[in-house]
Amino acid sequence: MINLFPCGVSAMIKVGIVGGTGYTGVELLRLLAQHPDAHLETITSRKEAGMAVSDMFPNLRGRVGLKFEDPAHAPLAKCDVVFFATPNGVAMQQARALVDAGVRVIDLAADFRIKDVSVWEKWYGMQHACPDLVKEAVYALPEINRAEIPGARVIANPGCYPTAVQLGFLPLVEAGVIELNGLVADCKSGVSGAGRKAEVSTLFSEASDNFKAYGVAGHRHLPEIVQGLSLRAGAPVGLTFVPHLTPLIRGIHATLYARLNKNVDIQALYEERYANEHFVDVLPAGSHPETRSVRSANFCRIAVHRPQGGDMVVILSVIDNLVKGAAGQAVQNMNILFGLPESTGLQQIPILP
Amino acid sequence: MINLFPCGVSAMIKVGIVGGTGYTGVELLRLLAQHPDAHLETITSRKEAGMAVSDMFPNLRGRVGLKFEDPAHAPLAKCDVVFFATPNGVAMQQARALVDAGVRVIDLAADFRIKDVSVWEKWYGMQHACPDLVKEAVYALPEINRAEIPGARVIANPGCYPTAVQLGFLPLVEAGVIELNGLVADCKSGVSGAGRKAEVSTLFSEASDNFKAYGVAGHRHLPEIVQGLSLRAGAPVGLTFVPHLTPLIRGIHATLYARLNKNVDIQALYEERYANEHFVDVLPAGSHPETRSVRSANFCRIAVHRPQGGDMVVILSVIDNLVKGAAGQAVQNMNILFGLPESTGLQQIPILP
Amino acid sequence: MINLFPCGVSAMIKVGIVGGTGYTGVELLRLLAQHPDAHLETITSRKEAGMAVSDMFPNLRGRVGLKFEDPAHAPLAKCDVVFFATPNGVAMQQARALVDAGVRVIDLAADFRIKDVSVWEKWYGMQHACPDLVKEAVYALPEINRAEIPGARVIANPGCYPTAVQLGFLPLVEAGVIELNGLVADCKSGVSGAGRKAEVSTLFSEASDNFKAYGVAGHRHLPEIVQGLSLRAGAPVGLTFVPHLTPLIRGIHATLYARLNKNVDIQALYEERYANEHFVDVLPAGSHPETRSVRSANFCRIAVHRPQGGDMVVILSVIDNLVKGAAGQAVQNMNILFGLPESTGLQQIPILP
Amino acid sequence: MINLFPCGVSAMIKVGIVGGTGYTGVELLRLLAQHPDAHLETITSRKEAGMAVSDMFPNLRGRVGLKFEDPAHAPLAKCDVVFFATPNGVAMQQARALVDAGVRVIDLAADFRIKDVSVWEKWYGMQHACPDLVKEAVYALPEINRAEIPGARVIANPGCYPTAVQLGFLPLVEAGVIELNGLVADCKSGVSGAGRKAEVSTLFSEASDNFKAYGVAGHRHLPEIVQGLSLRAGAPVGLTFVPHLTPLIRGIHATLYARLNKNVDIQALYEERYANEHFVDVLPAGSHPETRSVRSANFCRIAVHRPQGGDMVVILSVIDNLVKGAAGQAVQNMNILFGLPESTGLQQIPILP
Repeated sequence: MINLFPCGVSAMIKVGIVGGTGYTGVELLRLLAQHPDAHLETITSRKEAGMAVSDMFPNLRGRVGLKFEDPAHAPLAKCDVVFFATPNGVAMQQARALVDAGVRVIDLAADFRIKDVSVWEKWYGMQHACPDLVKEAVYALPEINRAEIPGARVIANPGCYPTAVQLGFLPLVEAGVIELNGLVADCKSGVSGAGRKAEVSTLFSEASDNFKAYGVAGHRHLPEIVQGLSLRAGAPVGLTFVPHLTPLIRGIHATLYARLNKNVDIQALYEERYANEHFVDVLPAGSHPETRSVRSANFCRIAVHRPQGGDMVVILSVIDNLVKGAAGQAVQNMNILFGLPESTGLQQIPILP
Repeated sequence: MINLFPCGVSAMIKVGIVGGTGYTGVELLRLLAQHPDAHLETITSRKEAGMAVSDMFPNLRGRVGLKFEDPAHAPLAKCDVVFFATPNGVAMQQARALVDAGVRVIDLAADFRIKDVSVWEKWYGMQHACPDLVKEAVYALPEINRAEIPGARVIANPGCYPTAVQLGFLPLVEAGVIELNGLVADCKSGVSGAGRKAEVSTLFSEASDNFKAYGVAGHRHLPEIVQGLSLRAGAPVGLTFVPHLTPLIRGIHATLYARLNKNVDIQALYEERYANEHFVDVLPAGSHPETRSVRSANFCRIAVHRPQGGDMVVILSVIDNLVKGAAGQAVQNMNILFGLPESTGLQQIPILP
Repeated sequence: MINLFPCGVSAMIKVGIVGGTGYTGVELLRLLAQHPDAHLETITSRKEAGMAVSDMFPNLRGRVGLKFEDPAHAPLAKCDVVFFATPNGVAMQQARALVDAGVRVIDLAADFRIKDVSVWEKWYGMQHACPDLVKEAVYALPEINRAEIPGARVIANPGCYPTAVQLGFLPLVEAGVIELNGLVADCKSGVSGAGRKAEVSTLFSEASDNFKAYGVAGHRHLPEIVQGLSLRAGAPVGLTFVPHLTPLIRGIHATLYARLNKNVDIQALYEERYANEHFVDVLPAGSHPETRSVRSANFCRIAVHRPQGGDMVVILSVIDNLVKGAAGQAVQNMNILFGLPESTGLQQIPILP
Repeated sequence: MINLFPCGVSAMIKVGIVGGTGYTGVELLRLLAQHPDAHLETITSRKEAGMAVSDMFPNLRGRVGLKFEDPAHAPLAKCDVVFFATPNGVAMQQARALVDAGVRVIDLAADFRIKDVSVWEKWYGMQHACPDLVKEAVYALPEINRAEIPGARVIANPGCYPTAVQLGFLPLVEAGVIELNGLVADCKSGVSGAGRKAEVSTLFSEASDNFKAYGVAGHRHLPEIVQGLSLRAGAPVGLTFVPHLTPLIRGIHATLYARLNKNVDIQALYEERYANEHFVDVLPAGSHPETRSVRSANFCRIAVHRPQGGDMVVILSVIDNLVKGAAGQAVQNMNILFGLPESTGLQQIPILP
């Protein structure tokens, strides 16, 4: 049976993290160490087992006392929830055992995001280890489907680009006011989106004072976005998605283009759609959201434009890729899973400048 | 009568620069100080008159011995060519007198770029001071119209975004293989594009580790691009142009979207179109040009994509906004004006890393 | 009479901020908006009166509902404490009236830092408006003199460099184990230390990808540091102080050099000196603190070295210039003033990466 | 017998490069491709053999047509000079054979820099493969000992920090006006100094918006600097050397501290010492050199200060670590070796902004 902490009960959620040496891992640690209802039980790293977490991440000195544990010995099965902050392909190997032990699983990687397993296998280049859990898993973008989350055993936490792009296109798609074929998502990501792996292309001397597109031929987040938008549209969506690497640490800026086929007040449409969303902020007409306005916080800020009053709309959507695009949204999902107010532990004000 | 140095004759081109305290000014100085056939006669600045140029720009120590001169006293009329590296609205005040004195004028600002003076006045918010010279002026993007340049008395040097965008769309537009309505130019510029004015929005602490769009409602380079592309297309072009500020010093990355209406080999189309262009480099299929690959040099590098084999083409076009987007192109135009090989003095290899 | 909130009483501290449009202003807002015992009553700006604070600083949307008020009409005198986040020379004009109205004053600028008014006037180039309050004011670096703070009516909040340098040298100076003549403080600051003024030298295109010293002939923080260290040493201190501008937004790194005249275990010396300090973190032997390890938080992290076992010690001390070097320390001082635990509202974990 | 091109003879110097995939390699290529008297014969890389150089470094497209060659088959022995742009420990394995074949060797790594082989072995952690060539090699900092260079068979090209520090201290040391014990060199380097290896610590997300010291306990450039300064002083020199990593791509800023023991006009001292040096630029009194003022060029710019007229002098010395600190100085040494004017091929103006 799945444990559930009724709202207001003081028992702490016992949390485990698998793979805590990357950027989504340290960000989870930062958020969870400040969360009033969560208790970090264990964090694993095969390679760094025995090392104090705060030796690797000195910002956590005095706040996180854990050492990395070998995943073979870590008490993951005793946790209420386990976050996978691992490369693609890890969570699908371990989720079954945890689920069977009554542990909720939140995967920050892509293992459970794509419902069509053959599509997933094509884009991710490996065979899926547990297709049945894919079927059961909830793709959890709370602004779309928070009602499905509380009962879930496996949560597929959305990707960073897919979060910014779906939240940006959603009101238009749901309202049925745009041509679904020919959408363009021109997206720019900070370098932390590439993770904490040692690679030449993300060295400071390569990525600083430089700008480039990548993956134009096809990026793994494309099928995820198309799946999400098509589902909401109730019809297939045609999307051209071009990601770019930009010299900032955190932040995604999605510039979205769509052609209106009905004359609507898009400012009002967006304000109404997100009126009750704590983490989606529709800016006043004429605004240009900056990535730093959400730096280190769980917000998505959106501005809508219709240049020269034509039928092309331009949507600007920004998030912090490590927060609303990863760890923050995962904590938001944990809050929903355990019946807590959605913004619990996620009230930090963005850092500016 | 207009002076013309026949190719190979050793007489030096006497050069004046009006407004040399901005980034296009110092870049002109860097290029011209190394140019084998140009001699810097004078550089003006009302505000800094009397100051050694190399006191303001220490990279020029030992290479440029001039002091800024008051424009009222500078021997501009004795020059063969005068570059205006001034804010919009300055060159149009002074060009007539210089032209009458037999001096060629190359304006790096926008005064002579838009043929329809009423359009210019609307976008630039001032009355034009010499519409007759607008008529006569040659909008000089050599890859389009180098034949018109040698006889010109007034050269309108193209803007930075317009250079990257036009070179990117040109082969498609000329070949008539795309739908002319619905073009998208999603452009990203380094901060030097905003100039050397003291402004809060371009302070390091504002623009660093940050990304944002600006001018989505309408940017002055839009009519310039539309004019250029429509002229080549022989039909009106519908363009959505969104500029963004990105934390690099130099560089523009234009990501261009168009829908094919004929099935063509776009890689071959681009390679053929630019086969004889020294400064336009079409990358191999599948490439992603980086802004740093042209840093400090006069190249435009272009890659073409057709994601998933669909009818949407994605063109990636990069330039250094201060070189091919401003000072370098101005020197290229000077070379053409005076019958020199186009790449004279523009052979520097980009700086990487 | 001075108001004092006994610890534990739930009444909120009524806070005013004078001059909230700079970086120390927005940082105060970020910290105070999250402070459980403070309530923002008013924030002033002559120039921006009427503008919503969150229109200028969108990170505060939904969190700070105030508009900038004209200082002439703002209810400053009804506040319990007023922070001056103004240029030098403003607080000294207004502090007397506030103090007389029973309001505590915390000046983040330099008006009350230097006890010798003639020295202050020489370095700051103006006549002091209220020397008597200088005498009374407490220079409040809590790790040195927290006992003097609760009764103060005027708090001189230390400068950014002086905080990093004094905390770095303090244990050596207090223990009397170094030669007091010949100290070197080689300091590097992020660009936000220069404030949010529009100036060419701190433009992104000037300060990015660049490094330089400044003020080598003499910087205003020199007399402040010398005053503080001499006081603790009980003898005059000879210091060479060289500040540098480095391309990061936030952060100060002080590299300090001193010659030992006694053989001591400096690691133990530092660990003992700061054993009970919440905000000073002495790193393990051999460490190199990074500025990002304190980014957005109120910590000072220090490492001590004795290269090759010689008599030269090298101390590395890092802070976030806007937090422990300005707004955070001001809030720490407010907490002490009002009898709150020192770390109230200052528990944020640094942002990394 | 050693080949020597008499000045003025048009025969090209045949150049080989071993290990061309790092930053000193691509910088050598940039400089040599523009050098009027050098011809690139071969460039080796075991790992990338067969790859076009310009596929790895797109800035070289159209300018360098070579492919990386397997070192086993590359015609190194037919070159006039071979540059080693390799990790430490490679050149010492291969130099003997090349020297025996009459090829000049210029090592940009550290294999031949330290005359005391036991000191070298201690700091570099390996056994030296050819101590006899160490003895013969010339440590070639032209501003110190250009007379020794023309006849050399093996050139030890100085390190980046040692170049900036030695040029900075040299006039004081040679004039005998400072206390030789207690020198401090507080140095800041751009990240390209760490090379093009994939390492976590130099990722953009780690090194950007961050500042830290490293190697305080002991850095390999310490013995090199001490050797050089002691030699010029004719007495042992005591130096504390602290390097720091700063978020710029290129550039070293050395801030040097020394105590005068004679009253001299240090501005005049420096101006005289470097009056005839093309690549050392002594700035006017009161200046603060910026690293960008030498970006991409072979200059060292120096400013001298004596704060408050005391006996502590502060010297500021900047270079581009990849040019005067590596590849540029290597080309300068090649020019001397082959009797060319020292600045041949090194006349590029620094890139600013």
